[in-house]
Amino acid sequence: MYVTKRKLVTLWGLILMKSGWLRILLKKKLSTTSQSLMMIPLYMEYLFNYLCLVIWMRKKILDAVCIEKDVDGFHPENMGRLAMRGREPSFVPCTPKGCIELLHRYNIPIKGKRAVVIGRSNIVGTPAAFLLQREDATVTVVHSRTENAEEITREADIIISAVGQPNMVRGSWVKPGAVIIDVGINPVEDPESARGYRLVGDICYEEARKVASAITPVPGGVGPMTIAMLLSNTLLSAKRIHNFS
Amino acid sequence: MYVTKRKLVTLWGLILMKSGWLRILLKKKLSTTSQSLMMIPLYMEYLFNYLCLVIWMRKKILDAVCIEKDVDGFHPENMGRLAMRGREPSFVPCTPKGCIELLHRYNIPIKGKRAVVIGRSNIVGTPAAFLLQREDATVTVVHSRTENAEEITREADIIISAVGQPNMVRGSWVKPGAVIIDVGINPVEDPESARGYRLVGDICYEEARKVASAITPVPGGVGPMTIAMLLSNTLLSAKRIHNFS
Repeated sequence: MYVTKRKLVTLWGLILMKSGWLRILLKKKLSTTSQSLMMIPLYMEYLFNYLCLVIWMRKKILDAVCIEKDVDGFHPENMGRLAMRGREPSFVPCTPKGCIELLHRYNIPIKGKRAVVIGRSNIVGTPAAFLLQREDATVTVVHSRTENAEEITREADIIISAVGQPNMVRGSWVKPGAVIIDVGINPVEDPESARGYRLVGDICYEEARKVASAITPVPGGVGPMTIAMLLSNTLLSAKRIHNFS
Repeated sequence: MYVTKRKLVTLWGLILMKSGWLRILLKKKLSTTSQSLMMIPLYMEYLFNYLCLVIWMRKKILDAVCIEKDVDGFHPENMGRLAMRGREPSFVPCTPKGCIELLHRYNIPIKGKRAVVIGRSNIVGTPAAFLLQREDATVTVVHSRTENAEEITREADIIISAVGQPNMVRGSWVKPGAVIIDVGINPVEDPESARGYRLVGDICYEEARKVASAITPVPGGVGPMTIAMLLSNTLLSAKRIHNFS
């Protein structure tokens, strides 16, 4: 079961990447009918994969994973335990765990600080908010329906952004000295790049780094942490199964 | 199982009330040794009940309740579903559900508004924050470790307080026109009352009602709503079991 799920997650990742490529491809003007026709199979494949996964994976598969092996920590019971006081999750979701690990390793105080999490996804935003609150931060979740997101974000000592909008958070959104963790990975068109695109985060790095006291780069910031935390959770799971302390 | 749990909740409520009485009793000066000795059985009873319930009830009992019959909505899986996007809880916890119902009945807009939840308990604060976020509010959870709670609370269009500190939120904490829901029920010494105490909320009612556009009284505000929502959840549970739509 678990192997199947991991494969699906990988597949999903690939599709997300592909949807990024697709967006870039679509921005190029399609001058001939043949070029337009060429896009149809890509479209169909994307739509098919997307529908399959959204309908099939998000609930059935996640619910079917045994909570003791849910090293991604996406099971609702695990999320509930993460959110509740006096409870411990079986596993902490990998990306938010990586974010908190970064804060710990760089001795950034969390207790009592104001934190803003931008984005409320089940995979990053929501569990990141829970983890920050477990560390006694005062957390505000900013999302697509938030009015004056800029003003709210400017109050934060710690910003975790996982929204998928390239360069959304400008330098003016950041309080001087704030710590920024950028979870976004967004492909943007770049004719200078060999691949025709480059990856940027949700944070406008060049602007924000002048104001912030610490900031993660994209790529190479949170990404490797997610992989490390997935390995950490997998090791933890194996240790528990074999009663190895 | 369910009846047992409800009885325990009632018992717990009684103990909490008793702990309130105890606090008042302790404030009275104990002038004689016999008076001090009189307190010992009370102390012992309180401590015994408290320890029993904290250790025994909070996890074992709650986890043992079948999620289809968990009309309180306290099961971790239910809480997880409440927190996650694209998921639906079996039951919404009664007190927070009552708070949101009050907002709906009085046509108070929630979408896009800034909401502050004071207190992060599993029973009220945490699920109230989830519900407000489900309604597209921008939610900040203020708790005991929050620095400048007053300043943060003053930014809120909607305040839900469930912290158990009598009159903690003063008029100066409230933005003019804000809507306040006071979940706190705190006994304070009152020699004029026949019982020697009276119940007050977390909000200083007399001060806050001059600033707020709407405020719930204590007692008689959220309390009856909780009972109504418990009945609503119980009815829903019965309907589901008997496939009655």
